[in-house]
Amino acid sequence: MGQTMAEALLANASGTEQVSPGDHVVCEIDLAMTQDIHTPGVVHLLEEMGVSELHDASRLVVVLDHVGPSHTVGNADEKAGIRQFVRDHPDAHFYDVGTGISHEVLPEKGHVRPGELIVGTDSHTVSHGAFGAASTGIGDTDMAYALATGQGWFRVPETVEFFVEGSFPEFVSAKDFLLHIAGEFGTDVARYRAIEFRGPTVESLSLDDRITLTNMSIELGAKFGFTPVDDVVTDYVEARTDEPFEVVNADDDADYAERYEVDVSDLEPQVAVPHDVGDVHPVSEVDPVEVDQVFLGSCTNGKFDDLAAAAAILDGHEVAPMTRFIVTPASREIYGRAERAGLIRVFNDAGAVVTNSTCGACPGLGLGVLGEGEVCLAAQNRNFRGRMGHNDSEIYLSSPETAAATAITGRITDPREV
Amino acid sequence: MGQTMAEALLANASGTEQVSPGDHVVCEIDLAMTQDIHTPGVVHLLEEMGVSELHDASRLVVVLDHVGPSHTVGNADEKAGIRQFVRDHPDAHFYDVGTGISHEVLPEKGHVRPGELIVGTDSHTVSHGAFGAASTGIGDTDMAYALATGQGWFRVPETVEFFVEGSFPEFVSAKDFLLHIAGEFGTDVARYRAIEFRGPTVESLSLDDRITLTNMSIELGAKFGFTPVDDVVTDYVEARTDEPFEVVNADDDADYAERYEVDVSDLEPQVAVPHDVGDVHPVSEVDPVEVDQVFLGSCTNGKFDDLAAAAAILDGHEVAPMTRFIVTPASREIYGRAERAGLIRVFNDAGAVVTNSTCGACPGLGLGVLGEGEVCLAAQNRNFRGRMGHNDSEIYLSSPETAAATAITGRITDPREV
Repeated sequence: MGQTMAEALLANASGTEQVSPGDHVVCEIDLAMTQDIHTPGVVHLLEEMGVSELHDASRLVVVLDHVGPSHTVGNADEKAGIRQFVRDHPDAHFYDVGTGISHEVLPEKGHVRPGELIVGTDSHTVSHGAFGAASTGIGDTDMAYALATGQGWFRVPETVEFFVEGSFPEFVSAKDFLLHIAGEFGTDVARYRAIEFRGPTVESLSLDDRITLTNMSIELGAKFGFTPVDDVVTDYVEARTDEPFEVVNADDDADYAERYEVDVSDLEPQVAVPHDVGDVHPVSEVDPVEVDQVFLGSCTNGKFDDLAAAAAILDGHEVAPMTRFIVTPASREIYGRAERAGLIRVFNDAGAVVTNSTCGACPGLGLGVLGEGEVCLAAQNRNFRGRMGHNDSEIYLSSPETAAATAITGRITDPREV
Repeated sequence: MGQTMAEALLANASGTEQVSPGDHVVCEIDLAMTQDIHTPGVVHLLEEMGVSELHDASRLVVVLDHVGPSHTVGNADEKAGIRQFVRDHPDAHFYDVGTGISHEVLPEKGHVRPGELIVGTDSHTVSHGAFGAASTGIGDTDMAYALATGQGWFRVPETVEFFVEGSFPEFVSAKDFLLHIAGEFGTDVARYRAIEFRGPTVESLSLDDRITLTNMSIELGAKFGFTPVDDVVTDYVEARTDEPFEVVNADDDADYAERYEVDVSDLEPQVAVPHDVGDVHPVSEVDPVEVDQVFLGSCTNGKFDDLAAAAAILDGHEVAPMTRFIVTPASREIYGRAERAGLIRVFNDAGAVVTNSTCGACPGLGLGVLGEGEVCLAAQNRNFRGRMGHNDSEIYLSSPETAAATAITGRITDPREV
């Protein structure tokens, strides 16, 4: 009997021929990532456990991405502690403030390969499913255990398939699709399940757009999120690493817990309204609410293709008075590509605030924090109450295209109308 | 008897034929600037005074430059209050987060003209002396009074002349000269005095480099700092404003309290060591201390010429591992010029952290804050204990050139040696 991607990958990682949903397996971890918010907790647990030598420090990547450059003395002290931990484990890979958001940096730097099992102390670690890796977020305790032993345990998840057909209309993109299914099927449609996004529409997406889907799988409750591994993926990976890897895709006769078919041909731009990723409406049915801030960035929408889509709309326009448009490329590499492509110039000339690469505004850490009663439309992944600042602020989620249109008018705006 | 620039400008502003040092004069304020740290206090005082209508709101410029985009809910709430104040006074000029540092933004936007009297709630308001304006920092109470009445009082200062001759050696620039005289003559050499920087070397400087001198006049205790008004200045101003202005320069027979002559032909790159702007040594006599952070930015050294001088040294090199190089253009306009000139690409490719325009790291506000025991070399204006973060951090001051060289090696480095 055939296997889904999650089943095949966990079977490989646990040295088993075949696994089934519900099985508990102990797996070898290929790569572990810790970011600046969680590294101190992991280090503390390792110390409590008396672990001074990691199982294999070369499998650890530490990325300082959530806050930086430090906004407080406390944060600076915490980061100094992380740098000391890295100095104490010279085989670990380290990317300091400004390199970018971990989920972008790891593939850029050649750490992500198809067929691998990757864990990170960040829920959006599911991103790497776009590279055919079983990749997911874990807590500090599991991470400390993984670093000490090289292993972790998993309950094999069921898999849900989203089969996507049709071509996106102009100014409608992967983010709109993801928000649409969050609204249509609910944010628990894949609770402790894997998702496989498949079908001709998915295969035609750029890698950046596929990552938008796998990245936000977690917003549907998923343990893993996958898109198929094809030449788009292997070409990218082979350009960044000499390490061998094994491509794993789902078998034709794999068994899915649910199968959903979605045609995107008539999809409108979508907006998730406060305070629920699943409270989604076509932009034409959302009030043209005035916004204080527009944010384009995060692991979800700070990729090159996201910046390009927004810049195409913004070009020749100006950001509305009394509206802040914060643009945060997801990595220094993306910043460089965007600069060479003229995108940074478009944003700066229009009056956007172009920041260094960081998570920053998305989790409300050190940059772009919202005050009481402020409203933000954000091309990012979550609009939970208080996520970007004050508990009485409001976050609307959209595509990069809708974000650019909204920055121009200062109110929630259909990108097809500017 | 002739008048110095300060005397002539204060005579004009007070409607008097002639004033002398020690005179108290009440002057008409041509322009008032408040930045984000001090606007709330000024607004509060105006409310306490029962002033709802300003004397002339069109003479007020509000710039949100010190922190931004907001790093805390408290800061976001404070900025929301400032924006409401601006909405209540629609004739006031307003530049939101990301436009740049006030001392750069005001001339860029055509608010600064020779012959004017300018006050700002920021000590580095002395910058605009490079445009032949009497410009200085005042406290919240004086500012509230100025906004309510359009007037302010001054004690006419004595003037100190620095007559500068000789050509700067390669990799030595205006900042080195300023640090040199701070070390040589002391940081109280111009306490409640005006400074006039004169002589062939000053006349040959670019406007950006002249601003480095007038900007840091306050570090020598000065009430005002001037460079002569010539075509360089008037060409700049006429390109940015249609308003008429009157050029005021010192009379040939003006009376100076002190006259100093300095020849820069043999000047070395200079470094001010912690924690005193006046504790200055040639870089060759400073220990090659390892630095955690290098900062290039601020109203002193975030100008285009500063970025260009640093990029020329950095080009083709990489920032040292475990060293953060933070580059903050002083305004969005400078960012755009730097991007078009390829400077932003040099910084990003080298591994610098290029931020949006803000004061940020220089006053340790929201960005680039130092932790306990951390060491920073900064091309900025002040190295007071704790200014950039922890009381037990250390700040060395240098030119942009020395900052770039230090970013490459990770230790304090002579730019002539890289």
